[in-house]
Amino acid sequence: MGSQGQEIPAVETKHDEAAIKSHLEELLAAQLPNSAIYNFLLSDAKILAASKGSMTARLTLTRNHINSGGGIHGAASAAIVDWAGGMAIATWDLRRRTGVSVDIHVSYLSSAAEGDEIEITAEADKVGGSLAFTRVVISKVVDGKTGPIIANGTHTKFVKQR
Amino acid sequence: MGSQGQEIPAVETKHDEAAIKSHLEELLAAQLPNSAIYNFLLSDAKILAASKGSMTARLTLTRNHINSGGGIHGAASAAIVDWAGGMAIATWDLRRRTGVSVDIHVSYLSSAAEGDEIEITAEADKVGGSLAFTRVVISKVVDGKTGPIIANGTHTKFVKQR
Amino acid sequence: MGSQGQEIPAVETKHDEAAIKSHLEELLAAQLPNSAIYNFLLSDAKILAASKGSMTARLTLTRNHINSGGGIHGAASAAIVDWAGGMAIATWDLRRRTGVSVDIHVSYLSSAAEGDEIEITAEADKVGGSLAFTRVVISKVVDGKTGPIIANGTHTKFVKQR
Amino acid sequence: MGSQGQEIPAVETKHDEAAIKSHLEELLAAQLPNSAIYNFLLSDAKILAASKGSMTARLTLTRNHINSGGGIHGAASAAIVDWAGGMAIATWDLRRRTGVSVDIHVSYLSSAAEGDEIEITAEADKVGGSLAFTRVVISKVVDGKTGPIIANGTHTKFVKQR
Repeated sequence: MGSQGQEIPAVETKHDEAAIKSHLEELLAAQLPNSAIYNFLLSDAKILAASKGSMTARLTLTRNHINSGGGIHGAASAAIVDWAGGMAIATWDLRRRTGVSVDIHVSYLSSAAEGDEIEITAEADKVGGSLAFTRVVISKVVDGKTGPIIANGTHTKFVKQR
Repeated sequence: MGSQGQEIPAVETKHDEAAIKSHLEELLAAQLPNSAIYNFLLSDAKILAASKGSMTARLTLTRNHINSGGGIHGAASAAIVDWAGGMAIATWDLRRRTGVSVDIHVSYLSSAAEGDEIEITAEADKVGGSLAFTRVVISKVVDGKTGPIIANGTHTKFVKQR
Repeated sequence: MGSQGQEIPAVETKHDEAAIKSHLEELLAAQLPNSAIYNFLLSDAKILAASKGSMTARLTLTRNHINSGGGIHGAASAAIVDWAGGMAIATWDLRRRTGVSVDIHVSYLSSAAEGDEIEITAEADKVGGSLAFTRVVISKVVDGKTGPIIANGTHTKFVKQR
Repeated sequence: MGSQGQEIPAVETKHDEAAIKSHLEELLAAQLPNSAIYNFLLSDAKILAASKGSMTARLTLTRNHINSGGGIHGAASAAIVDWAGGMAIATWDLRRRTGVSVDIHVSYLSSAAEGDEIEITAEADKVGGSLAFTRVVISKVVDGKTGPIIANGTHTKFVKQR
């Protein structure tokens, strides 16, 4: 019985992570028809994993993400940081409303090209009563694994329920 | 003759500002077919004025700029800061290549809706041999005049000619 | 009498700006003994001018502000942005409590040396019920006038009265 | 022989990490007398661990780090992000010169009080020929372990050797 008691939380945790992942998938599906810029950039994003405070997604870069020099557009990376920060907040308690942006900061480390796959990891470090703080890293996927960082950023949102 | 001598620079300055404005208009026209995200967000942008280190543009918000809540999308504002910073650098010496992004920061102060006109002012505070530093303010146009700030940001680019 | 009526607001406005400047001077005097880092860096700061949403101050750089290379220390510039943003908020309604920091961003454009005088301008673009947004520019004073920008930044604070 | 071959890199790696830690300790000792603001804030900092691209340090907060409300001062956290980013760059190749700041961004999540111990982790994500990109997290130490995040930030430096 003791061991069963120990197993139940483990099973619940697995169930929770599946539930969180499903929640993000539903949220993304709901965003795409209602947010033109997300639809333009994120219609092929796949949620790989999610847990409370954390999300990993992948996306293959298309012409929509690329600048005139053939590399990933800084505005696309900023949009991805914007989106991923909100998704990390949504993992917190399966909320659908992830607040309004307070500030976003993105540093640009390296580039990626059309056809490259990128990995997006987002962490919600704090989801408080008024503010939520997130960090996002966009990396290139190389041989199926997380490769060099393309951009990293932070996204802070005002999440107070009015 | 002295007064003529004084007038000539004034005439040249006017000519310069017209030339800078034309340069930005040509640059925007060249960007649109080669940068999908700029084409998605900035195809209706109008350059109002330009001088060395400074640009003012206006844009009427369409569905492409709006989030699911009906307000200007944070990712759209970030893309505008990205674009406008580059344009401010282009005013410096009529250059066409405005470098690659190092970092971008945007603060979100208030919202605007579909159909609202926004004004975008960008200043290049320094265009050095390696780095260029710009500041951008996005405001709502109210009764034809600059109204409340929607977002402000900074955009730093690496501009070294290789 | 009508003209007196018109003059009164003008007199009041002048009085207001003097009152705002006095308020900032008192606030700075109160900060110095209670905030060690402000005391270390800002004990010689002079408020030059203030109005609702705006402050200008000057400061002569001492050894306390300088890095090992002999230039103004990035951490000193960040501290000045932190301080000046709060002062700009204090101009809004002569409040003494200017909130807690949400985020700060500083870009570093050029340097200054021990003995140089710097000018600090801060604008509060919005002081809302929850958040206040400020922008700060630190410039070198050259021949008594505002010279090249040393650093610019933004400072966002949470100002909700609990 | 094969096992010896495998052991040698392991031994070298341990040696390297000790060498990197010593390098940071020497660098800090050299900074303190030449950088007044670091001396004011970091004279008690202890390097806990270091490897290529990564540093962990701890510091007990004194009155010098505290604001008038009794919490860690935002300007102190910004100074720590400034310092730690440079230290992470120094781990890269045991360099002593870590460049000049391009930009710094700090988000403020929670507070800490005089007497609290904080942990500072810094990562250099990229140290290139011109620019180096770092991320810093400041956490509260609770029962000897890494506790809640107080602040996180990014610090980008220009590292080109002239």
